[in-house]
Amino acid sequence: MNPESFLQLDRVIHEKVRLAIMSMLAASPDLSFTELRETLQLTDGNLTSHLRTLQESGYLAVTKAYQDSRPLTTCSLTPAGRKAFEDYLVRLEDIVRQARAIA
Amino acid sequence: MNPESFLQLDRVIHEKVRLAIMSMLAASPDLSFTELRETLQLTDGNLTSHLRTLQESGYLAVTKAYQDSRPLTTCSLTPAGRKAFEDYLVRLEDIVRQARAIA
Repeated sequence: MNPESFLQLDRVIHEKVRLAIMSMLAASPDLSFTELRETLQLTDGNLTSHLRTLQESGYLAVTKAYQDSRPLTTCSLTPAGRKAFEDYLVRLEDIVRQARAIA
Repeated sequence: MNPESFLQLDRVIHEKVRLAIMSMLAASPDLSFTELRETLQLTDGNLTSHLRTLQESGYLAVTKAYQDSRPLTTCSLTPAGRKAFEDYLVRLEDIVRQARAIA
């Protein structure tokens, strides 16, 4: 077994809610706060907290605007976020491969 | 995207050090405390803490014995631990598959 694949997993992305957020954003140019919250069935506070962590790591860009006089918060991955997610995914595939070679 | 695959990930196994421990034990009938510690480059305290979490979840059996008058601690997965690891792996494969379908 190669322990590096495990120990080098990015803790920011590995947390399961953030992994879901990163995966959703990898599939879209951008998503609204509401779309993320409803798909992942999170509270406002919980989603806000995870978005802040991703933003502080430089993985997420958050844009605040107004649509029909209502506030609209939009999230997208930064280039650094896309790169970090790709690196994470390569390690995760390696872990699955190692585990399946055994099972 | 299917959010269930993410949200149902077992938090006990998902933590990256415990994921490495579970993967090593899935590949062996048992491993000593020393083998785990050296492969994963952990301190005694850190490894002990993660082993306790796995034991309290019913995933790990720990046996203490003596070999040549020296204490020998041996770890192995319980049947519940093997089952939980297999379930975890199925979810992880689903996550990788979803992410790769996008990328």
